[in-house]
Amino acid sequence: MASPLINQSDPIASINLIHDELESFKKNVDIFFLVVMGSIVFFLQAGFAFYESGSVRSKNVTNVLFLNYMDTSIGSLFYLLCGYALAFGEGNGFCGTRYFALVGLPFDKMAHCFFQYTFAATATTIVKSSLHERSSMTAYFTSIMLLSGITYPIVSHWAWSPVGWLAQLGYRDFAGSGVVHAMGGSAGLAAALMTGPRTGRFEKNGNCNPIQPHSIPQVTLGAFIFLFGAIAFNAGSNLTISKSKDGAVISLVCLNTLICVASATATSLLYQRYFTASGRTVKNWNIVNMLNGSFTGMVVICAGCDQYPPWASLVVGCLGYFAFLLVFKAMQRFQIDDATNSVPVQLGGGYFGVIGAAIFGSDGIILSPSKSSAYVLLVNVFGGAVIAIFSFLSVLFLYVILRYFNLHRVTEREEKIGLDLALHNQAAYHMEDDKIERIISVESISRRSTAKVQPANSPYRLRRMTSEPHIQAW
Amino acid sequence: MASPLINQSDPIASINLIHDELESFKKNVDIFFLVVMGSIVFFLQAGFAFYESGSVRSKNVTNVLFLNYMDTSIGSLFYLLCGYALAFGEGNGFCGTRYFALVGLPFDKMAHCFFQYTFAATATTIVKSSLHERSSMTAYFTSIMLLSGITYPIVSHWAWSPVGWLAQLGYRDFAGSGVVHAMGGSAGLAAALMTGPRTGRFEKNGNCNPIQPHSIPQVTLGAFIFLFGAIAFNAGSNLTISKSKDGAVISLVCLNTLICVASATATSLLYQRYFTASGRTVKNWNIVNMLNGSFTGMVVICAGCDQYPPWASLVVGCLGYFAFLLVFKAMQRFQIDDATNSVPVQLGGGYFGVIGAAIFGSDGIILSPSKSSAYVLLVNVFGGAVIAIFSFLSVLFLYVILRYFNLHRVTEREEKIGLDLALHNQAAYHMEDDKIERIISVESISRRSTAKVQPANSPYRLRRMTSEPHIQAW
Amino acid sequence: MASPLINQSDPIASINLIHDELESFKKNVDIFFLVVMGSIVFFLQAGFAFYESGSVRSKNVTNVLFLNYMDTSIGSLFYLLCGYALAFGEGNGFCGTRYFALVGLPFDKMAHCFFQYTFAATATTIVKSSLHERSSMTAYFTSIMLLSGITYPIVSHWAWSPVGWLAQLGYRDFAGSGVVHAMGGSAGLAAALMTGPRTGRFEKNGNCNPIQPHSIPQVTLGAFIFLFGAIAFNAGSNLTISKSKDGAVISLVCLNTLICVASATATSLLYQRYFTASGRTVKNWNIVNMLNGSFTGMVVICAGCDQYPPWASLVVGCLGYFAFLLVFKAMQRFQIDDATNSVPVQLGGGYFGVIGAAIFGSDGIILSPSKSSAYVLLVNVFGGAVIAIFSFLSVLFLYVILRYFNLHRVTEREEKIGLDLALHNQAAYHMEDDKIERIISVESISRRSTAKVQPANSPYRLRRMTSEPHIQAW
Repeated sequence: MASPLINQSDPIASINLIHDELESFKKNVDIFFLVVMGSIVFFLQAGFAFYESGSVRSKNVTNVLFLNYMDTSIGSLFYLLCGYALAFGEGNGFCGTRYFALVGLPFDKMAHCFFQYTFAATATTIVKSSLHERSSMTAYFTSIMLLSGITYPIVSHWAWSPVGWLAQLGYRDFAGSGVVHAMGGSAGLAAALMTGPRTGRFEKNGNCNPIQPHSIPQVTLGAFIFLFGAIAFNAGSNLTISKSKDGAVISLVCLNTLICVASATATSLLYQRYFTASGRTVKNWNIVNMLNGSFTGMVVICAGCDQYPPWASLVVGCLGYFAFLLVFKAMQRFQIDDATNSVPVQLGGGYFGVIGAAIFGSDGIILSPSKSSAYVLLVNVFGGAVIAIFSFLSVLFLYVILRYFNLHRVTEREEKIGLDLALHNQAAYHMEDDKIERIISVESISRRSTAKVQPANSPYRLRRMTSEPHIQAW
Repeated sequence: MASPLINQSDPIASINLIHDELESFKKNVDIFFLVVMGSIVFFLQAGFAFYESGSVRSKNVTNVLFLNYMDTSIGSLFYLLCGYALAFGEGNGFCGTRYFALVGLPFDKMAHCFFQYTFAATATTIVKSSLHERSSMTAYFTSIMLLSGITYPIVSHWAWSPVGWLAQLGYRDFAGSGVVHAMGGSAGLAAALMTGPRTGRFEKNGNCNPIQPHSIPQVTLGAFIFLFGAIAFNAGSNLTISKSKDGAVISLVCLNTLICVASATATSLLYQRYFTASGRTVKNWNIVNMLNGSFTGMVVICAGCDQYPPWASLVVGCLGYFAFLLVFKAMQRFQIDDATNSVPVQLGGGYFGVIGAAIFGSDGIILSPSKSSAYVLLVNVFGGAVIAIFSFLSVLFLYVILRYFNLHRVTEREEKIGLDLALHNQAAYHMEDDKIERIISVESISRRSTAKVQPANSPYRLRRMTSEPHIQAW
Repeated sequence: MASPLINQSDPIASINLIHDELESFKKNVDIFFLVVMGSIVFFLQAGFAFYESGSVRSKNVTNVLFLNYMDTSIGSLFYLLCGYALAFGEGNGFCGTRYFALVGLPFDKMAHCFFQYTFAATATTIVKSSLHERSSMTAYFTSIMLLSGITYPIVSHWAWSPVGWLAQLGYRDFAGSGVVHAMGGSAGLAAALMTGPRTGRFEKNGNCNPIQPHSIPQVTLGAFIFLFGAIAFNAGSNLTISKSKDGAVISLVCLNTLICVASATATSLLYQRYFTASGRTVKNWNIVNMLNGSFTGMVVICAGCDQYPPWASLVVGCLGYFAFLLVFKAMQRFQIDDATNSVPVQLGGGYFGVIGAAIFGSDGIILSPSKSSAYVLLVNVFGGAVIAIFSFLSVLFLYVILRYFNLHRVTEREEKIGLDLALHNQAAYHMEDDKIERIISVESISRRSTAKVQPANSPYRLRRMTSEPHIQAW
């Protein structure tokens, strides 16, 4: 069937027409790609929310969820007002200078802006992960503004804008081990240092009292959402699907992500089983340790997932776990309290990921040793450090002000009561079972006066009622 | 490389061939787009399930989840049997007349049918949100049948079928602020009115007893799933990705959705902080209020998200919160009980969204004041109202019948006991911790006769066991 | 606008150029399709995790989540090392022989490998679903290795590799009712048989003591994630989106999946209401029964979802529920314990799905009765049985070894205490509410010496504090 659009007598005109149509279609599919990947990355916010809310004590759960949701839903204001402009508004080596408040942003770049926002949201939410259970609302609000509006955008400009000074030097960080994770982890470290540990977390003699996660299901829900989002995070970082090499890169990225996560998780399990006291004496498979290993795998792979051959992902994941462990031990040694181990995962894993990309990548120093690959390694070591230091200092600066006005932390009494009641007047859980029982008991008594009276707070009456053999009944 | 498909001597034939191939590929990618977006919109059902199950008391959780899952998994029967035909089966201005029970539905339209079903599922599930904790199963079943089989399809035919009378008039509602949300909210209002409030919710003197959500994590899980789905809901409403303008529209839609949600959420926080009694006296950041603000942002943006310049989304989100508040206050004033605030969010936000699209859109009355834009405003004000009234009346009609046979509500005793035990014989939660402790205590005693006996119901034994310093152990 | 790439004087060369570009773009979009669908299928792992963790008692929740997460994150190692090679590494009719440890895997196949891994992960996780609450870690680890590294890959080679012997015979199983579900269910049956029932599950007189799910919200969360993933599972099984028929197939698949799930769910509800004792005497809508019906619908549709006319999906879903019921009753009769009813759903539903595809498919024995369709029916009956028997035997073989070394099951004491404390030293839930109350009470007393003293374990103080009319306050 000849299309009416095709000029039957002028093949060249028709060819140009089809070519233009194909190009415009490609652009649309790229946008489709960014929107889908961005949506899934956006859902990572739920991962952070539940990993963190599960990790804290039951008296601080509402607060954690409140903060995560707030940060997700209003962080976009700061990024769109100011962040995207600083990051991708062309400009100079230090920061961008156009598109503030999206003014003049062409339609072409809007999907890019949406996608980049989902990364900014991830970076921003990391910083607060270390602060839970004792930080003030003011501290949260201001760090979210700082991180999503200024710090992260500037760092991402350096590395990912074509005119950024780190990009110009040749810094490599495909999906943000440094730009997102080390940046966020380092900011979190500064905040944790300035906020101080939770009351009772450390003792003067160096003892470290563990604080149990209040809900393992919530913690694990977060972890599964991370797994879901990690693929999209890394694959989406390619930004396009229409260029001829995009398919191959994205395919490799997916496999490398799987492998690195598997490797870091397996390492965490083996280490725990064979090299820790508790592993040797009793079977003590710690789930939080495993999850942290797994998260480190997700963080460490980002920088080089487009470059590693599969075996390198295995090695990087394995070594990444030890980078995590190192920072983890150091944090305990120096009594820096991190409610969700986010600093070891994000800073330890992220910085190692940046270095690993320059070592194990396909044109890294091992697979193609040369002056230029040594230079890239140097740039990555240096660039990752500069990123971490910059974000550390920016948060430190904020906290100096906050501490001056004593706004950085809730009162000791609020901390004791729990932030859910102290700041939100809303406990996370309200169970009414005992009330129900009492109603049932009373009714049973009034209806069947010969029934044996159940004590009001007995759990048995209810259990019996619900234990009828419902399964046999079908 | 010359493809064997290309006729080397007849360029025109080859061009036509490639053009056809490109067109067929475009159709497939459009289907891909609908399937992905539809799947994510379908997942919104989980958002409703958890937002609602968290919002009710712990004695009604199984019931809420049962209903949500049932509605999701069997609602499709009614829509596919009858709804899609009424909505998109061509026909006249009032309803479609083909494709009943999918008979004669061409393959071309199947993905469209799938995608539209996910919208119908959303619309249907809204209506029952207001009814929890006292409504009967019969009432739920029949409303689901009515809404997904008849009411929503007819309304969507009016607005979204090319031959629908509202579409013909020029009614604008890109992603359904009116068609989905105001429709559902208005139906929910009718149902809530006819069902009456939960026992003890209101007092004669006008007092309104708040009923606490039993699980903030569940509530927030629902909220995060809404955020995830909102992007797909609005972007998917474009239905295609292959036409030349699709990319730009979808990009704009994503940004506008982000901005409007942020704006409504921020407004809810600021309002609460500075204009309520509790805000001024104590720091009382209410999470449910914030979430409702955020949901209103998602609802209000739908109608015009393809048209607003970004600043307009900010304004619309901010004003939308007050539309919510107005309906919210009215509901309390008139003592209409809504278990999840769905009527204020969906009806208040939805109807305002329809009006907002005609005011703030790029060819709305502010940006391009003219007779035609005034006419569109009139059509939208009128169209939104007709939609709300039609769905209100259809549900009212159903409830008149239900009330006649006294089938609309559970008995007072069932309400007291909770629907989980009364209707499902299945409490939502069964914790066995105290049993475990007892086992451990008994064992400890029998093994170490000198051990100090722990009282059976003491929580300490268990805590001590689980409080070994597992974190240090790695 | 003429593109610089187009040679204006040589139309044939230009045509070839555009054609190549289109082909390369198509390949990329196919990869995009696999990555998105694969990511969503991957998220099914979270569905299994929460469906299972909700279904067990509260003392085994951490264990279930640990296993699910571990299996998800390290199962890929075995599949990528060995499984993908056995499945799709060309080779002979029995198994593939290339690409071990991904060596020599071309970029072209990497997305395919990623996607297939997500199916292997699904198949692997099914096997352990029946074992919870009494199985040892060793048994889990080794079954995961066996299933994802050897058994599933070999079975999928038979059916889905072009050179597989079942494929050569004409076996039809579009999305894996047999290859994934019956395989996994049958393996789970072998494991459940060899592990034995949970202590106290069955009595000698044939009684069967139901074990309540500890959290209906978790169970239902799993179910919603299944619904989300089921669409991607079946649609993704088409593997490409760029071929001309792909769009139509994928559209049909989505509708058929919806219909079959709806049909099986509705059948489970109707059966329960009208044909069981509990249904007739009290309104006893069992949510677990409904969910199992729904899951059966997802399983049973896989094999023929590309072939059924919509009415056939309805029939197959309805009959599928009875296949489930049959296996369910048989399991109870023979006192085989399955913690999550996975064997009835996966084996009953899966095997019936394989048969159903050959009966009700568009070229099945009903719609086009002929010798060839009778032959296909025979092949499917036989092929499904061989798959089930092979996977049964492979797991049986493993368990013979495990039982010989007495490694298949935890000790009775560990089972009593619960695997959370016994194996992980980590209870799933830690609630601190009573502590908080005490703090508040004590503080109230010390501050207001005239205050009435609250007993330390009273729930009222807390409730009162949180029951301030926060909703009115906005």
